[in-house]
Amino acid sequence: MALVVQKYGGSSVADAECVKRVAQRIVATKKAGNDVVVVVSAMGDTTDELIDLAEQVSPLPPGRELDMLLTAGERISMALLAMAIANLGHEARSFTGSQAGVITDDSHGKARIIDVTPGRIRSALDDGSIAIVAGFQGVSQNSKDITTLGRGGSDTTAVALAAALDADVCEIYTDVDGVFTADPRIVPTARRIPSISYEEMMEMAACGAKILHLRCVEYARRYNIPIHVRSSFSQRTGTWIADSTEGSEMEQAIISGVAHDRSEAKVTVVGVPDKVGEAATIFSVLSDAGINLDMIVQNVSAAATGRTDISFTLPATDGQTALTALNKVKERIGFESLQYDDRIGKISLIGAGMRSHPGVTAKFFSAIAEAGVNIEMISTSEIRISVVVSQDDVEAAVTAAHRAFELDADQVEAVVYGGTGR
Amino acid sequence: MALVVQKYGGSSVADAECVKRVAQRIVATKKAGNDVVVVVSAMGDTTDELIDLAEQVSPLPPGRELDMLLTAGERISMALLAMAIANLGHEARSFTGSQAGVITDDSHGKARIIDVTPGRIRSALDDGSIAIVAGFQGVSQNSKDITTLGRGGSDTTAVALAAALDADVCEIYTDVDGVFTADPRIVPTARRIPSISYEEMMEMAACGAKILHLRCVEYARRYNIPIHVRSSFSQRTGTWIADSTEGSEMEQAIISGVAHDRSEAKVTVVGVPDKVGEAATIFSVLSDAGINLDMIVQNVSAAATGRTDISFTLPATDGQTALTALNKVKERIGFESLQYDDRIGKISLIGAGMRSHPGVTAKFFSAIAEAGVNIEMISTSEIRISVVVSQDDVEAAVTAAHRAFELDADQVEAVVYGGTGR
Repeated sequence: MALVVQKYGGSSVADAECVKRVAQRIVATKKAGNDVVVVVSAMGDTTDELIDLAEQVSPLPPGRELDMLLTAGERISMALLAMAIANLGHEARSFTGSQAGVITDDSHGKARIIDVTPGRIRSALDDGSIAIVAGFQGVSQNSKDITTLGRGGSDTTAVALAAALDADVCEIYTDVDGVFTADPRIVPTARRIPSISYEEMMEMAACGAKILHLRCVEYARRYNIPIHVRSSFSQRTGTWIADSTEGSEMEQAIISGVAHDRSEAKVTVVGVPDKVGEAATIFSVLSDAGINLDMIVQNVSAAATGRTDISFTLPATDGQTALTALNKVKERIGFESLQYDDRIGKISLIGAGMRSHPGVTAKFFSAIAEAGVNIEMISTSEIRISVVVSQDDVEAAVTAAHRAFELDADQVEAVVYGGTGR
Repeated sequence: MALVVQKYGGSSVADAECVKRVAQRIVATKKAGNDVVVVVSAMGDTTDELIDLAEQVSPLPPGRELDMLLTAGERISMALLAMAIANLGHEARSFTGSQAGVITDDSHGKARIIDVTPGRIRSALDDGSIAIVAGFQGVSQNSKDITTLGRGGSDTTAVALAAALDADVCEIYTDVDGVFTADPRIVPTARRIPSISYEEMMEMAACGAKILHLRCVEYARRYNIPIHVRSSFSQRTGTWIADSTEGSEMEQAIISGVAHDRSEAKVTVVGVPDKVGEAATIFSVLSDAGINLDMIVQNVSAAATGRTDISFTLPATDGQTALTALNKVKERIGFESLQYDDRIGKISLIGAGMRSHPGVTAKFFSAIAEAGVNIEMISTSEIRISVVVSQDDVEAAVTAAHRAFELDADQVEAVVYGGTGR
């Protein structure tokens, strides 16, 4: 008998019919002889509707109260799911994040899980019950206030519970059949990736693949929890994410996939005096403003002027904050001007095989060049190469890279089953 | 500085604008130098919408899960209210029933409060914060599951918190200006009752006055918490409910008001053998079926037949259950048949002055007779006389009784401010 943790996103429980269908899948897993713990998100657009209500009441609602409000969403979906399971003749008990023992820090809206004490979940399982847990939420260790985990929160809840319960697998249900070699909306012949290492999946997530959030994969790697990403609308096998050392028998592709991200912006600080410590000042100012930078490029200083340009990318949503913070220290640092461009896109090639295949970089750049796309910035890791291009060139660059590394399938594999959001 | 507990019903927080208006009233109370604890119901039709969702998923949802679902309603309204107060520059913290220390028994859907441990509320007040508490909900002592209190639950939460916190007053806000001598929809010249004793208010509630639920008044009497029922849409003084011995200076009316109730049905068990114990069997069968009876009348046995008829009233919603339970014991008891009538109405005259004014009953019956209304059943207590009439005669009987006891005001006093439900 295995212990299976399943996570269903908002599109999988968008309405009463969806809830009933998911209940059948859960009961089937239980009937197959497994203990089942289910983590569920809020139904469809519930969270957006609650945020809309909050905005009608206050332009800047306190984080504590916004978390209290938003956690009503999973409360509704989890109770309905438990009812639907009961209606199929199986016992199910729903638990809030707090009841499930998801202990977090005090950062409302983006709390981090610091402990999981799933005593009540264990008791429910011991009683032969299916446990339904609200995703995305917890209770803060110090103030005992309700918190939400922010983006990717429900996936992280599922992995954290799987770790705390020593589950055999964490199944993440979504509206596609797994992780693909590229976004099927751009590359219709993208292939489903049958298995991928934590490391590669983390790079995929960090580079814009929206199927799993980075923190969820990080958590799974830390506790070595195998993740199975699959569709709640089909019975097909999806993508297994696991420690690559364990799957030595799996055929290791050189390149796992091509990810893209249109959500970043590029800032260039023009004419920075080429003195020791100037770059450090710039980056500590941004860090103090709570901004996470992605790629950073510094040009060689022009000998004639003694000045250099520093470019970096960051989430476009942080753009205004960054410009304001930098303008405040313009005099102190003595740079000449700021340039801002949010019409960029990042294309990343990810693959553990890159380590031992030195020709990958050249092939990637050639493919992009042949597609007539200009590269603005470059950054690399051991298993990833990323380039920044104009946002208008994203599709051409992704398609070219995908073809160059022979990732295309013979036929269309990807089906998007759901409709709205996740 | 006083400690004020305020309760706002669903119509007072029906939408974002209503929530903001209520927030202003709460802040005004705080600014006047009071500590303020607010109990809030779910917004407008939220509870009905959640029940509708549950019905789409399961015809008979487990009580535990239905309670989990429904408590999402107050979670939303209380968080929004706290945000609206914060937006006015005052700190407010929302608390679920569980967080507020509302401990109940395990009866899902109709839990009874067995203890209130408002440590977190007290801390919030000590910090100068306004505390917002979800009405209608608690946490069960044994299983630690979320429970709901059933009808009148939010009012009861408010009174229970007021008792536990030793509050100076519990203000119940609604969409009318207080308790009236009759339902203003039937008697437009009904008068606002400035003050009324717990005892009389309990009779009013038990006899169909919907403004407060019986259990809430019972709770207030037990702990001697003054209740002020008033409108959230005006600044007028409403009705004070308090111990009558304390208000000896108040002018005591002989009759407080006329209540009516159209929600009951009448069952007649025809031809019951006139033997010792037959009535007891009938009523223990009904009691075992969980039915609360209201009025009971037994006719004098007809000497010729040795048989008698027993009539009783009960909530019409329990009618089918009662008939089924009685039909099962028809052979054993040997009665002849059952008659069922849900087209009845009950008119009750309530007043503590009745004790010392023996002519009240005669005057009441005369007034009803003069209105051409036939009385089907009669029951009395020390401070109440109730009669059952045909449902079509309810308005005529109420109007006649109200006029006979000179309760009419010179002008229309009652204004119904809100729109939908409570």
